[in-house]
Amino acid sequence: MKNLVGACMFGQSGGPTSVINASAAGVITEALKQKNITAVYGAAHGIKGILDEQFFDMGKEDLQEIMLLKNTPSSALGSCRYKLKDASVDDTDYKRILEVFQKYNIRYFFYNGGNDSMDTCNKVSKYLLSVGYECNIIGVPKTIDNDLYGTDHCPGYASAAKYVATTMMELNLDAKVYDKGQITIVEIMGRNAGWLTAAAALASYKGLGADLIYLPEIPFSADKFLADVKRVADANNGKCIVAVSEGIKTEEGVYVAEALSAAKAKDNFGHTQLGGLAANLAQLVSERIGGKVRGIEFSLMQRCGAHIASAVDVEEAFLAGQTAVRAAVDGETDKMVVFERDMSDGSYKCNLKLMPVDLAANTEKTVPLEWIVNDGTMLSKEFVDYALPLIQGDSKAPLEDGLPRFARLKKVIAAH
Amino acid sequence: MKNLVGACMFGQSGGPTSVINASAAGVITEALKQKNITAVYGAAHGIKGILDEQFFDMGKEDLQEIMLLKNTPSSALGSCRYKLKDASVDDTDYKRILEVFQKYNIRYFFYNGGNDSMDTCNKVSKYLLSVGYECNIIGVPKTIDNDLYGTDHCPGYASAAKYVATTMMELNLDAKVYDKGQITIVEIMGRNAGWLTAAAALASYKGLGADLIYLPEIPFSADKFLADVKRVADANNGKCIVAVSEGIKTEEGVYVAEALSAAKAKDNFGHTQLGGLAANLAQLVSERIGGKVRGIEFSLMQRCGAHIASAVDVEEAFLAGQTAVRAAVDGETDKMVVFERDMSDGSYKCNLKLMPVDLAANTEKTVPLEWIVNDGTMLSKEFVDYALPLIQGDSKAPLEDGLPRFARLKKVIAAH
Repeated sequence: MKNLVGACMFGQSGGPTSVINASAAGVITEALKQKNITAVYGAAHGIKGILDEQFFDMGKEDLQEIMLLKNTPSSALGSCRYKLKDASVDDTDYKRILEVFQKYNIRYFFYNGGNDSMDTCNKVSKYLLSVGYECNIIGVPKTIDNDLYGTDHCPGYASAAKYVATTMMELNLDAKVYDKGQITIVEIMGRNAGWLTAAAALASYKGLGADLIYLPEIPFSADKFLADVKRVADANNGKCIVAVSEGIKTEEGVYVAEALSAAKAKDNFGHTQLGGLAANLAQLVSERIGGKVRGIEFSLMQRCGAHIASAVDVEEAFLAGQTAVRAAVDGETDKMVVFERDMSDGSYKCNLKLMPVDLAANTEKTVPLEWIVNDGTMLSKEFVDYALPLIQGDSKAPLEDGLPRFARLKKVIAAH
Repeated sequence: MKNLVGACMFGQSGGPTSVINASAAGVITEALKQKNITAVYGAAHGIKGILDEQFFDMGKEDLQEIMLLKNTPSSALGSCRYKLKDASVDDTDYKRILEVFQKYNIRYFFYNGGNDSMDTCNKVSKYLLSVGYECNIIGVPKTIDNDLYGTDHCPGYASAAKYVATTMMELNLDAKVYDKGQITIVEIMGRNAGWLTAAAALASYKGLGADLIYLPEIPFSADKFLADVKRVADANNGKCIVAVSEGIKTEEGVYVAEALSAAKAKDNFGHTQLGGLAANLAQLVSERIGGKVRGIEFSLMQRCGAHIASAVDVEEAFLAGQTAVRAAVDGETDKMVVFERDMSDGSYKCNLKLMPVDLAANTEKTVPLEWIVNDGTMLSKEFVDYALPLIQGDSKAPLEDGLPRFARLKKVIAAH
């Protein structure tokens, strides 16, 4: 554990969330306070910005704008999806990172993202250790998928979950308004873990959610799905609301989205088809059950809906950034910030801890199978008890002309 | 002008909005206060509920729940899309309405909806006048399409516009986050009038909206569209955000959504295709320009997103309901409530007036062509000045467990 003196580099990576910038605000404000940190840089488009020597001098920003980041969605510094090769295979990128870090005397590195980003964090950390370049590196977790190992939950999940639950309640009222039935199929993000789709159950427990919920954790059978939908619709004047994860897979492990598209393409003499899972499932229901069917995709809105962010999530995301900086300055490295739920006094509290970053890299935490009930179509009360404390409170940008006033960064390119 | 004594009937009709229940709250609370009104009934599923003698006794509801209607989206009493035949062709429905009105001594009728609903209102009014049944009838306007004639704007529009503008700002930040380009095509509701799609321009004027906006008011050319998109994308590192109305039409007056679906169906040997306009335009762009393209539909969310309702809209919708009741009790009939903008003291104020309901029935008000600029791809400052005062302030349901606490009506079927 070394107390280093030098500049710090911060980067954002992977799919944006409503609160990744809240973590940025936590990192930046805390780093600017530390006397051991001589400069605070924000990488443009994550690791790509380091490789390209494109990063911003955060010391040149107004503090007020940095604080507005707390309620500004998406990644203000830009993001990337860039996977580093193993250094043993090709160390070109690592040498370049080392070169840039040396040039700017970067002794602190904070990287904010999900599994892939923690993989980057881990690889850079291990490489710099191997070459003896002293740099304290801490990963800051972020993902609407909530699938990072070793942490109770991930910043970004709760706000997306709040969007999903609130919107499901509103959709329930809308989709059931007519005297005639309608089957509504809502597609929710999450490739391999069903946490976000499960949030539709929070609305169900309020009596205004999905009737049926399908997660990737349970193999998907089209025949069972059709029978489930028909049963619910028959019992409810033709009305049925389904929440389905984009990541549902067949028994054989094939994504249903791809299987349905492939079937349609084949059916149509090889023409490829656009159109998401919701639209394809809606078509299937329409053909096999009939009636009015509507497919809805929450698309990007579920991950950038900062106007309905959870106050708990925003504060925890900020705290995660702040904690990363404090830990690094105290000499910690090669770690990721994790959240530990503390219910010792009967109500929800969250403690921030550190975990070796390699444990988080490329692992996935899925929804416990025992929380998936009703023959694989609903979440149990245990899930509700888990998720509900995370979505409490509202936190949003101030209004200007009735619209959100998001942060406006100057983005001054760092000079050497 | 007759001051009648008797029961009142209220109905909601057509597509739901975020604030149609705010008008319901205005009608119901005001009607319950009037000593000339002996009972307050709410029709289940609009005019259908009257024909089926299915309506609720609103006097049996808790006042607190009625007030929660102000922030509860969709139509709490249920809606319908039921078009009355001309009485000269078939007066069966009218005789039935008269029978029910007589049975319950209904002397006040308030109907809340858009063009088609005002047509219903007008026809019922004219029929009852023709048979000499005294009943004061006032239409309460509502439509996210904002296309009713004779009123500055319609309740429901502003909240949907606020959803569109806010979400476009969030999407802009999300869709432009990567170092690589993405063309994003967002489909917004509005079959014949572009008011709601135009709201994307409010975000554009904040620097975070659509680059290109296409309304049904201007004939759509796919070639020009592709050239526009390519020009913007080429100038912006492959990034371009498009807002497009579901109602755009070709020079020949054919809906582009239908033309594209038909072309695909033909191309695919007669198989019909599901998938909306955004998906089809995205496919076109992908084939003709290439790169990453994403189609997004705001779908039902734009009309039921009560969590982001405009405070101005909620209050005006409530006031419209209240005004309808007061006018009817004062002896007015065969009218619709309209809004008149008053900028006499330099800031926005809205006066409520009455207009003959037949003027509103089945007419459509479109966006002035002189407000559509940049070769048919953007809205002028005049539009921004028109729309901005309407979306001011937040108004939303109280939170319960971090989720909206919507009204829960008992819906006690009215006894004769």
